Amino acid sequence: MSFNPLIERIANTQNPTVVGLDPRLEYIPEFIKESAFDELGRTLSGVSRAFHNFNMAIIDAICDIVPAVKPQSAFYEALGAEGILALQATCDYATARGMYVILDGKRNDIGSTAEGYAEAYLGKVAIDGEEFQPWQVNALTVNGYLGTDGIVPFVKACDKHDKGIFVLVKTSNPSSGELQDKLIGDKSVYEIMGELTAKWGNESIGKYGYSAVGAVVGATYPAQIAELRKKLPATFFLIPGYGAQGGTAADLKAAFDGNGLGGIVNSSRGVICAYKQEQCDERDFAGAARRECLRMRDDLMSEIGSINLP
Amino acid sequence: MSFNPLIERIANTQNPTVVGLDPRLEYIPEFIKESAFDELGRTLSGVSRAFHNFNMAIIDAICDIVPAVKPQSAFYEALGAEGILALQATCDYATARGMYVILDGKRNDIGSTAEGYAEAYLGKVAIDGEEFQPWQVNALTVNGYLGTDGIVPFVKACDKHDKGIFVLVKTSNPSSGELQDKLIGDKSVYEIMGELTAKWGNESIGKYGYSAVGAVVGATYPAQIAELRKKLPATFFLIPGYGAQGGTAADLKAAFDGNGLGGIVNSSRGVICAYKQEQCDERDFAGAARRECLRMRDDLMSEIGSINLP
Repeated sequence: MSFNPLIERIANTQNPTVVGLDPRLEYIPEFIKESAFDELGRTLSGVSRAFHNFNMAIIDAICDIVPAVKPQSAFYEALGAEGILALQATCDYATARGMYVILDGKRNDIGSTAEGYAEAYLGKVAIDGEEFQPWQVNALTVNGYLGTDGIVPFVKACDKHDKGIFVLVKTSNPSSGELQDKLIGDKSVYEIMGELTAKWGNESIGKYGYSAVGAVVGATYPAQIAELRKKLPATFFLIPGYGAQGGTAADLKAAFDGNGLGGIVNSSRGVICAYKQEQCDERDFAGAARRECLRMRDDLMSEIGSINLP
Repeated sequence: MSFNPLIERIANTQNPTVVGLDPRLEYIPEFIKESAFDELGRTLSGVSRAFHNFNMAIIDAICDIVPAVKPQSAFYEALGAEGILALQATCDYATARGMYVILDGKRNDIGSTAEGYAEAYLGKVAIDGEEFQPWQVNALTVNGYLGTDGIVPFVKACDKHDKGIFVLVKTSNPSSGELQDKLIGDKSVYEIMGELTAKWGNESIGKYGYSAVGAVVGATYPAQIAELRKKLPATFFLIPGYGAQGGTAADLKAAFDGNGLGGIVNSSRGVICAYKQEQCDERDFAGAARRECLRMRDDLMSEIGSINLP
């Protein structure tokens, strides 16, 4: 239970960041595409192979300096079962290289179906008594619109299998406020979702002070990050929206506690497409990803100072 | 655009219902399990094969009297890529048998990733100019917590590819009110989500008066169904919660307009596990499913009267 394994990796690397593995065909260097297409054709299998090879190279280049990866399920689902094979293989490979894996699926459903998702991604699947684990995932993003009975099955799986979830609280997109900022009495919807998140995590607070039920809070809303950090002292934050979407290191400082803990900041395109930004040889795409990870780490750590396990 | 194809199937069958294909290993008759396990072992592949064979038999038994099926993605994702193969094959088979396919995935993400989901499930995937369609799906359930920029990509895909979405408005589970019933000024969160849903569908109203952006409204909340039908005259409802969860035909009558249109009622376990309820020979599981579909149709139609295309 709790995010202890993630927090320890963050402290070991002195790097509170996660790299979003959100491949799209236009992000993949030509030589990787051509090699996969030569083998499997310009097919869904060929693209899946290209995504997998791309991801493995990125993971190899960053696994000693970055604690976690966050594959975005949408881009793999888009390729059907072939894409899911690439997603599973990516999770397996990141796990084997010692990284913490956050699957970004934003899953949500009513109780019995939420159990299905929870068992799938955070637990094990039993077939006549024998257990299988198709998904090597440490944490999953979830959507709490359905309320407690849609979340409790995930929390139970976290407790049982030492996993975590991140509930969408205040998302990074421009129209997130349309519902999330509306006031219910004197509290906003995201505040209420934040309070529910804290309540759901209340029984799973680990030795570093954070529960297994984290919150997604967008880097694009620094005032809300500061407010939520104060109100939710035991809730770990997954923070998208740094870089491309506009969030800066200074905006994010308030997410972190006195030990430099409390959040993990995501960058997807900024890292995996760094070779385009750098305009370097595309064969150096993984090197460019590593350089961007180091730049981002230094940028954030210049605000945070250092990360210490209490 | 719009739900015209669904509405026409409903009128043709005089049956406003959808069968939820939510297989779990304990629902599958022994002879189907054994046959799949003999071929592929007690493995994720074996279970996936059993799910696929089970679904095909149910589809064969009901496709002339039921307009639509709704596979629940969670139970297939639980088996990894093998399960996704079974889900794709189920969607393909239902499509080939003339059924309308609603994929229950409750997907949601910010703009660029929502595009990924929308292209995947409702559109086509382009690989260097050639188009692939890994998913034979007519409609997808989505979660609107992220606001307009998380939904518009789905609406665009609906317009382009003649598909539909159902936005979670008032879900059928016991704790749905925790957030959804809270008041923002004098309106509940579900009412505001309902208004947003109507707004998102405003440009896609079809010849039968309903847009391509429907709403999920639980059968377990009849007062809210009646209220939302009045406020959202162009929003088609997907209604879970009939039967096992407690919703009755009388509870649902208010979802339908004067032509008997406006909603489609889901039953999952009630149909696919009807053979257990009936305690008939398990080899007659598909026959039992058909009998339950006829019973449910007659139950609903006794309240609705008849269904007429305006």
